[in-house]
Amino acid sequence: MADDAPRRDAALVALDWGTTTFRAWLLDGTGSVLDSVRTADGALTVSERTDSARARAAAFEATFAWLCRPWLDEHPGIPVLCAGMAGSNHGWAEAGYLDVPAELSGLADRLTVVPAGDSVVHIVPGLRDAGPDPDVMRGEEVQLVGALATAADRPETVVLPGTHSKWVRLDGDRVTGFTTAMTGELYGLLMRDSILARLATGEVGPKASAAFARGLEAEAAHGDERGLSALLFTARPLVLAGRLGSAEVADYVSGLLIGAEVRHALRGDPAAVVALCGPPSTEDRYRLALERGGVSVRIVEEDAAVHGLWRIALDAGLASLTPTATPASVLTAEEQPS
Amino acid sequence: MADDAPRRDAALVALDWGTTTFRAWLLDGTGSVLDSVRTADGALTVSERTDSARARAAAFEATFAWLCRPWLDEHPGIPVLCAGMAGSNHGWAEAGYLDVPAELSGLADRLTVVPAGDSVVHIVPGLRDAGPDPDVMRGEEVQLVGALATAADRPETVVLPGTHSKWVRLDGDRVTGFTTAMTGELYGLLMRDSILARLATGEVGPKASAAFARGLEAEAAHGDERGLSALLFTARPLVLAGRLGSAEVADYVSGLLIGAEVRHALRGDPAAVVALCGPPSTEDRYRLALERGGVSVRIVEEDAAVHGLWRIALDAGLASLTPTATPASVLTAEEQPS
Repeated sequence: MADDAPRRDAALVALDWGTTTFRAWLLDGTGSVLDSVRTADGALTVSERTDSARARAAAFEATFAWLCRPWLDEHPGIPVLCAGMAGSNHGWAEAGYLDVPAELSGLADRLTVVPAGDSVVHIVPGLRDAGPDPDVMRGEEVQLVGALATAADRPETVVLPGTHSKWVRLDGDRVTGFTTAMTGELYGLLMRDSILARLATGEVGPKASAAFARGLEAEAAHGDERGLSALLFTARPLVLAGRLGSAEVADYVSGLLIGAEVRHALRGDPAAVVALCGPPSTEDRYRLALERGGVSVRIVEEDAAVHGLWRIALDAGLASLTPTATPASVLTAEEQPS
Repeated sequence: MADDAPRRDAALVALDWGTTTFRAWLLDGTGSVLDSVRTADGALTVSERTDSARARAAAFEATFAWLCRPWLDEHPGIPVLCAGMAGSNHGWAEAGYLDVPAELSGLADRLTVVPAGDSVVHIVPGLRDAGPDPDVMRGEEVQLVGALATAADRPETVVLPGTHSKWVRLDGDRVTGFTTAMTGELYGLLMRDSILARLATGEVGPKASAAFARGLEAEAAHGDERGLSALLFTARPLVLAGRLGSAEVADYVSGLLIGAEVRHALRGDPAAVVALCGPPSTEDRYRLALERGGVSVRIVEEDAAVHGLWRIALDAGLASLTPTATPASVLTAEEQPS
């Protein structure tokens, strides 16, 4: 913040503590971001350094205190809300699950309370489908809350692409079921270590290319007869034959993988309108694959997690909405609504 | 060989020099194995140590001379026949491809000759499909020749499971086309580095278990609606819910992957009878998946490569069939036909 900007009071520390990434935001009484931190201190890194549940909890507490120290020192007793793998059975404290079908507003009633020095940390539960095809999510539920809070209409399906993409079916505010596809992880494994990685001269860029579209088309044309494991191998003979450039391999493979995920998901659960909420690097690709499947796509802004955490904090009474003391005209440039 | 066994003359050194493994056999004039070597000096390991084509060729020659020295010293000028990735453009010498449709007997007419000290090494070409869905194999073509030489009837489809499984379509001795699936490599990547590897307490055993069958069934029931990327993730919530044991994860994942490969391959190219030729660790699994698909399976003995190399050496006139001087009754135990 510029020194001459009016001071806004901090109201909440919001944490999205995932497997590989730690993200934290300091929010004011309107849910706007005053400050933020992002590091590679993911839950896996923290838990791998420890050999007992007690040591693990201490390591999480110490990491949190270290990364958020300036905020905690300046705002003693500020409420803290945390989502993500920090709430798993290998995390800070096991925060359980809400079984679907479930109202998203129920997340706020099931927070797990963990003391942390002078602070109290509240951990959001995950969502679980305990039916015949079980599934779990932890962290994506706050993205989902944020996506719904900012979506223009009420989508029946929300797609959250990522390492483990989530396809969430909704009836209003109620999650009726969801499915996970490990497409992002498969892409990472293949492009890091496989025979395809040795062919490829680069990773995917921010925008889908012609090679991505070619992967989508090949999967749509041959996926049912050849299967993913055979389709993925086609990159190699195509490169050997000079019909696919080394620089195109990553995008082609991405097209095959995302194409297969989207085509199967839409076949299993046809949707006319989908809300898509992911990082910019995947948004363009999933949009193309979804539109190819005849679906109308609504893009939801990327950083839904912080909106979701704020929404849950309000529902839980951890924070209360205060009218902003700052007229829009004096917001600094980076705080302007985009 | 036991000291008192009658001496049989060596007639051929046969090499199957793959990406990760070097295998060599010393054969007598009937194609029987006198001695063998197997090391981890795969073509990738050898080529990674070099930075030019000349240095690479020298490294291959030195590795060959080192690993086969006793045979070469004792049998100067013995013919050498080599198949596998040593014949690739990153190998010892580029041995080209035979384009399909192609008679397998044509392999013997297209050997690439490489001098190696006092020896001459002949490298077998690979097979290539240069059509709209291109594909390549290098090394499996000698397995195929060996499998056909020892098969009781003439199969229309031969399946060679492995890191990169090959599905070969035949019309008599003529290869009309083939398809590769990178199932074995996907399994390796997933069980070494993925979120599934962190769940699993072991690798697959030599025999298919109930968990493998469960993976097959899940894939058959849900593969079309959920896709492989979503099905693979199911191992995690199943373990979290206590419905799949950690010791079962590897077999379940293997069932999903092999199930998907086989089901798609049979859909793309229905076959009533399949000859199956792979290592014992995969034979049982592929047989189950194929029989589930309504196919009658003929098992071909595992070590088809050495039979194929001998067959090609005969066709090329590198070796000639000599009547054995050794009556079967004096063969040592390990040389008895099994």
